Amino acid sequence: MAEERSLIFPAQEYRARVARLQAKMAANAQDALLLTSAADIFYVTGFLTRFWESPARPWFIIIPANGDPVAVIPSIGADLMGKTWMTTIRTWPAPVPGDDGLSLLAETLADMVPATGSIALPMGLETHLRMPLADYLTLTTRLAPRRFVDGTDTVQRVREIKSKAEVVKIRAACAIADRAYARVPEFAATGRPLNQIFRDFQRVLLEEGADWVSYVAGGAGQGGYGDVISPATDQPLQTGDVLMLDTGAVRDGYFCDFDRNYAVGPVSAQTHRAQAALHVATDRALATLRPGMLARDAHRILSDELARHGFADAGGRLGHGLGITLTEWPSFTPLDTTELVEGMVLTLEPGAVVEGGTILVHEENIVLRANGPELLSTRAPRDLPQLD
Amino acid sequence: MAEERSLIFPAQEYRARVARLQAKMAANAQDALLLTSAADIFYVTGFLTRFWESPARPWFIIIPANGDPVAVIPSIGADLMGKTWMTTIRTWPAPVPGDDGLSLLAETLADMVPATGSIALPMGLETHLRMPLADYLTLTTRLAPRRFVDGTDTVQRVREIKSKAEVVKIRAACAIADRAYARVPEFAATGRPLNQIFRDFQRVLLEEGADWVSYVAGGAGQGGYGDVISPATDQPLQTGDVLMLDTGAVRDGYFCDFDRNYAVGPVSAQTHRAQAALHVATDRALATLRPGMLARDAHRILSDELARHGFADAGGRLGHGLGITLTEWPSFTPLDTTELVEGMVLTLEPGAVVEGGTILVHEENIVLRANGPELLSTRAPRDLPQLD
Repeated sequence: MAEERSLIFPAQEYRARVARLQAKMAANAQDALLLTSAADIFYVTGFLTRFWESPARPWFIIIPANGDPVAVIPSIGADLMGKTWMTTIRTWPAPVPGDDGLSLLAETLADMVPATGSIALPMGLETHLRMPLADYLTLTTRLAPRRFVDGTDTVQRVREIKSKAEVVKIRAACAIADRAYARVPEFAATGRPLNQIFRDFQRVLLEEGADWVSYVAGGAGQGGYGDVISPATDQPLQTGDVLMLDTGAVRDGYFCDFDRNYAVGPVSAQTHRAQAALHVATDRALATLRPGMLARDAHRILSDELARHGFADAGGRLGHGLGITLTEWPSFTPLDTTELVEGMVLTLEPGAVVEGGTILVHEENIVLRANGPELLSTRAPRDLPQLD
Repeated sequence: MAEERSLIFPAQEYRARVARLQAKMAANAQDALLLTSAADIFYVTGFLTRFWESPARPWFIIIPANGDPVAVIPSIGADLMGKTWMTTIRTWPAPVPGDDGLSLLAETLADMVPATGSIALPMGLETHLRMPLADYLTLTTRLAPRRFVDGTDTVQRVREIKSKAEVVKIRAACAIADRAYARVPEFAATGRPLNQIFRDFQRVLLEEGADWVSYVAGGAGQGGYGDVISPATDQPLQTGDVLMLDTGAVRDGYFCDFDRNYAVGPVSAQTHRAQAALHVATDRALATLRPGMLARDAHRILSDELARHGFADAGGRLGHGLGITLTEWPSFTPLDTTELVEGMVLTLEPGAVVEGGTILVHEENIVLRANGPELLSTRAPRDLPQLD
């Protein structure tokens, strides 16, 4: 039972992912792909642990041009990696000052990549190198004349298209949040401090089946809120507030990411108008978004519809990818020209300025099908639900 | 109220931190310090948000040789950063494909650092660069002849010594976990699946005052467990199991990190002997650890005492630093020569091999005083508490 769970999916799912990555590597003339991030390593192997929270140790997966990936990891992870479909697992007793897996990684790459070859790793927007920078710089010198090249396109064009099995997982995460949002009236009411509401919301997400809650944000204010990334204060909810809760709850390593708004007693007519505009704008995107459009088209659909109802968009992106991290590319901004393709899981996240300094943000999760979006979250009600 | 909470501490706390960093920069001949990680940025500014969970955008803080730090951040963070003590906040509307804050960062650094100067950033063990690698490489070219140098020592020698105010916060996080561990018998018993126990444990941590729960791990098995980083399966607890729960619960941005073990009904005599050895080894470290010793001395004290009782240590590190991330340097391994200094907050984490493939791990949190360790967690009982 433990072993099935460690895999999350059957080995065939991972083999298919690696085959797609290798096809993209071939198209980009890359001889190996080096992965260091929790998300990329989970994607290829099924290795799922909260131990990434410790910054102490680097972890490496190498995908060769042909054949199975190789894991080069701290020995503390050998047992768990051994339960995945990985068969070649090389370990060192991390952390080792002075050579924390670097020689083992360099030897492994030298064996797998010809001296004239190229090693791709993600270097672009939305990526980070999860190993000490000094070690990376040493590695590039030690492996010369092999070249290190940008593998962002290789990884992103593959990861952004979700398999059927992945959509099932994201839908399950969304269903957990749906059930938790339905229970918000149990714990949110006038006089309740926002930080207690955040704690209760996390508790309810766990009760509804989240393995853990990687993200909760929100806000509350008269008719709207000013900011959607601040931690909660102990300020009590007041009549006339709009309460917004947003979550990335995790089940089997997959995220949901959508929010819900609640009126705390009666709120202003302008707030109701903003809510209506956000709902209609989302409906418009649900009706018209299609594969072949670009990310910026989604931004345009949403912001045009808001403008048609007299609202400025709240700035920033109006949606993004979603899956094994809380947010993934592309971004619904006026500048993002990423093509939207069938199988992408996306958030529609229009925000509207209610009045000076106050905003409302409305978010749903979808999978993009050939004929348009299919909702993964249960559609928010058209009218703001009212608490107490 | 919101504004006090965003600061976590009075501005004077942060000013003192920056003064200490600048003294270390001067000693290391560094003209600026560039910080990109959530922990380093929180340390300097008090900017606390779970929004780091989104990998989409980089964030930058620059500390000059003299004067106040400058924030170069995505505009979505301007409101929250504006509530901290930072006064110079430059923003861009991230994410911007092609130039995601890079020009703004380069201009800011060019203004702040002479052309012959050096810019330090953490590059060593336990550090990651949280910005796209390609952007970093472009930055080094664009800012030449300025040099980028390793700022790991500058940051670590300062952050590792906790202020009184920080110790108060870590003690509060530990007290939350203490109360949660006392409630484990409410939800853990024979027949209960481990993944439900993990969910309940997180729920109870929230109820006891955690803002969020960044880390829960554990294990259960006959007389001990095999691995301490795997996610929970739905396997039910059985009589004869030892259940271990470990947590990094967060309050005001500060972590605890300690575990507790429970016997599920009667367990073997060998398990009781291992527990006794771990308890005595921890007592020995509590009695003898002193500033001026090295990290490897802590490893030796713990592993020698385990050996004296006939147990091999479980491998890996036997303790580490703790504070604004779940784990911090140094590491209690035979190789780590970091000096232990007064004011360090540390975990004592001896693990013992119970019998082939089965281990027990015992963990406490301390602050190192001039005369030795002061416990921050409530000392675990000498005998395994029994669930039934």
